[in-house]
Amino acid sequence: MAQEDVFKKIVSHCKEYGFVFPSSDIYDGLGAVYDYGQNGVELKNNIKQYWWQSMVLLHENIVGIDAAIFMHPTTWKASGHVDAFNDPLIDNRDSKKRYRADVLIEDQIAKYEEKINKEIAKAAKKFGDSFDEQKFRETNPRVLEHQQKRDALHQRYSDAMNASDLNELKQIILDEGIVCPISGTHNWTDVRQFNLMFKTEVGSTAEGSSTIYLRPETAQGIFVNYLNVQKTGRMKLPFGIAQIGKAFRNEIVARQFIFRMREFEQMEMQYFVKPGTELQWFETWKKTRMAWHQALGFGAENYRFHDHEKLAHYANAASDIEFHMPFGFKEVEGIHSRTNFDLSQHAKYSGKKIEYFDPETNESYTPYVIETSIGVDRMFLSIMCHSYEEEKLENGETRVVLKLPEALAPVKLAVMPLVKKDGLPEKAHEIISNLRFHFNCKYDEKDSIGKRYRRQDAIGTPYCVTVDYDTLKDNTVTLRHRDTMEQKRVNIADLQGIIEDRVSITSLLKKIM
Amino acid sequence: MAQEDVFKKIVSHCKEYGFVFPSSDIYDGLGAVYDYGQNGVELKNNIKQYWWQSMVLLHENIVGIDAAIFMHPTTWKASGHVDAFNDPLIDNRDSKKRYRADVLIEDQIAKYEEKINKEIAKAAKKFGDSFDEQKFRETNPRVLEHQQKRDALHQRYSDAMNASDLNELKQIILDEGIVCPISGTHNWTDVRQFNLMFKTEVGSTAEGSSTIYLRPETAQGIFVNYLNVQKTGRMKLPFGIAQIGKAFRNEIVARQFIFRMREFEQMEMQYFVKPGTELQWFETWKKTRMAWHQALGFGAENYRFHDHEKLAHYANAASDIEFHMPFGFKEVEGIHSRTNFDLSQHAKYSGKKIEYFDPETNESYTPYVIETSIGVDRMFLSIMCHSYEEEKLENGETRVVLKLPEALAPVKLAVMPLVKKDGLPEKAHEIISNLRFHFNCKYDEKDSIGKRYRRQDAIGTPYCVTVDYDTLKDNTVTLRHRDTMEQKRVNIADLQGIIEDRVSITSLLKKIM
Repeated sequence: MAQEDVFKKIVSHCKEYGFVFPSSDIYDGLGAVYDYGQNGVELKNNIKQYWWQSMVLLHENIVGIDAAIFMHPTTWKASGHVDAFNDPLIDNRDSKKRYRADVLIEDQIAKYEEKINKEIAKAAKKFGDSFDEQKFRETNPRVLEHQQKRDALHQRYSDAMNASDLNELKQIILDEGIVCPISGTHNWTDVRQFNLMFKTEVGSTAEGSSTIYLRPETAQGIFVNYLNVQKTGRMKLPFGIAQIGKAFRNEIVARQFIFRMREFEQMEMQYFVKPGTELQWFETWKKTRMAWHQALGFGAENYRFHDHEKLAHYANAASDIEFHMPFGFKEVEGIHSRTNFDLSQHAKYSGKKIEYFDPETNESYTPYVIETSIGVDRMFLSIMCHSYEEEKLENGETRVVLKLPEALAPVKLAVMPLVKKDGLPEKAHEIISNLRFHFNCKYDEKDSIGKRYRRQDAIGTPYCVTVDYDTLKDNTVTLRHRDTMEQKRVNIADLQGIIEDRVSITSLLKKIM
Repeated sequence: MAQEDVFKKIVSHCKEYGFVFPSSDIYDGLGAVYDYGQNGVELKNNIKQYWWQSMVLLHENIVGIDAAIFMHPTTWKASGHVDAFNDPLIDNRDSKKRYRADVLIEDQIAKYEEKINKEIAKAAKKFGDSFDEQKFRETNPRVLEHQQKRDALHQRYSDAMNASDLNELKQIILDEGIVCPISGTHNWTDVRQFNLMFKTEVGSTAEGSSTIYLRPETAQGIFVNYLNVQKTGRMKLPFGIAQIGKAFRNEIVARQFIFRMREFEQMEMQYFVKPGTELQWFETWKKTRMAWHQALGFGAENYRFHDHEKLAHYANAASDIEFHMPFGFKEVEGIHSRTNFDLSQHAKYSGKKIEYFDPETNESYTPYVIETSIGVDRMFLSIMCHSYEEEKLENGETRVVLKLPEALAPVKLAVMPLVKKDGLPEKAHEIISNLRFHFNCKYDEKDSIGKRYRRQDAIGTPYCVTVDYDTLKDNTVTLRHRDTMEQKRVNIADLQGIIEDRVSITSLLKKIM
């Protein structure tokens, strides 16, 4: 199945099984905004728990905060967002449609890539087992030509973006003959900058109200609280401040489902260190964060680092953790060495002295910062993508199963009475009433047992228990595992011991701490 | 100590000990917006956990969702917020200051109350033990006059508010001789309505952008998702949908710290029931919710129901759970019987059929709704207020102790080496490294043991363990309890057993489920 089709299936599975709904669905949705349904919210909460516990509760020198979405507007002047948090936009005069100039060019780069892949697929089909892709890439004249064009375009585009050269971006679009997908014409306006922050008016005094922004990242909430937390928490360097919260960006081209949304959630941690030690800590955090991802069990081959060659002006090192999504390796987390840029800027704009007095060396300095930043929604999507499987069964049927890491599954155990009578439902409820304090249990009595198994497979429930007539006699039940589909007879009293450790977030954490 | 002073102390304690900071404090704050610090975020998370577990995870027929803050703008047309979510504002022409007309009048009512209290205080001082307050209230002519004026004003004000009669509100202000606190004049403008929803512009198409609102309540996110959740979750009536999330209101007069903020967090549950059964369910939920509050152990006398006499046009019953705050009994939770108003409005505005097919009676109908709604921040404040104590100790000193419910305390156990040498810090870390997977532990080595105890008392840590030289010999430590200050020698191996149950949210839940 083509990767694009897989992705479509995952999107529709998310809606059909209560993971993700389009926002305000009855009003036909709101662009690039989504709601989490009854199963989605539990998966999302478990991801957040896994992060918070590993980063805050189990780290002696990291504390959490929960800063408001509304912040003093000078924050965004100091951080550079007011002046430079822009997308380059271009309009087609015929269709009246607006596009991101950078996305148009990236799509063009992708087209060269597609052409190369088509050549390779054609040759692979023709030559069969004897096909040597590497050699073909290095020698086939058509592939070489596409590669050369792609690389040249990529270079020219990167240079233009780094220089914020809007005229050059337009010139690339014209030179490449990129047309509007709606009108099919080259009738483009100039490229203009568009700020991605949402604005709103707060207060209402007779003199007027003031404009504030919805935060476009959670990081600044940590920087402006640095002094308060360090002082009231008596924190000693190196230490971290972590936060989970919503952020908002007025994305023009929002694509790929929940991968890029206008309202999204971040999990960010800023680690404050002594200047000069930041690159060591950068390496430490790269390793620590990669281990956190890999503990989910999706296989190391699905992760890679992407070290940035071009750095933002305030950074002296940056790397992404990329995960293998159906649409390629994509960033799920960024690890950045941000120097003292943010704290210095806030010191400058607030007039406050933002420094750390180091009792060991008796000197004061502005700490350097290593940041780790994940998008919760992106993480959610990567987990859904990798857990979704269509399995051919021995009887020829296909089952859809979400092989979620057990600790993250929304429901851990479904308890099913074989029939809706003779005391079996009551027995099932009795089992739940004891176990529910240890992990999330659901009662499920509708349809045949087979259908119920399929339904639980589809939402990723790792364990199902069937209560039958024997249960009433000997207090045993049939325990069935999602992935192996193996069934075995176990004593009710043993259920907690068998299941609890395997489905707890603590067990995930013990792998890495 | 006067209640007002107590409240001021709590506000400053919240800042000094990392519970609540003014938002963007280094920029001198942002009005009516606050950030939660390193201890506040843990307390807040524990409150949310306690609610989510009791309402969602332990309820067989309640599921959660997490709807976005951004919603389709028609949502707020349907809900009535666009037309009727207003505050009545009035300007003073001399000071150019703007006020809420209703607040000016409520302050005036409070002034009559103050006058009565002053008369009573004066008489109490004069008559000493023989003073009979009840009789004095019923007979003293000055008190009777103030009471009569207060009651008449209250009646006139309530009628004007219920009729949304803006001219009458202005007339009351003039008749009562209410002046602007800044200019001291009666030079008032007319009263005008001001909508409390924050607006922002989303998207940027060549044709223009569209206005959306920041949700002023989370409830509508549940109503617009009713169909998706009911269908994909195969829910049968009665069932509930619960949500925790941020909401925003452009309050003009935001007062009392985090009691009324512009950005705040709600925990709401909508319980969908068969029409005709809603008043029974209303009573059930009143009881259930009250039990949830009282399980925290603050004493039943600090809670009361306030049944609404005047109901919103869509409600057929409503009651608040009020908690005894330093500034009086105040609403912490509302329980409302909202009929089918919201679902019917969304059906009308969306053109979708929002009905439930009842398999038992073979009929379709629009469900009725019982809503339970708490403000997380308000709940947080009520817990801080009731936990804060200044205790006189035997040695004459005073200690500040936060007697938080143990299950909600940010840190459960502080582990302290007696000295920073001879392997005691290592032993302390060893104890933490085992226990931290079970509850939140902190290492604390600075200052004398006495000072460390005070610091842990001030953030509400229920248990402290001191590691000394004997610990190295016999693996025992001194365990000290926050409230009793009793110390006893216990084996390290017994710590988990002694502490875990008492500090777990599960133990709170077992009291009520």
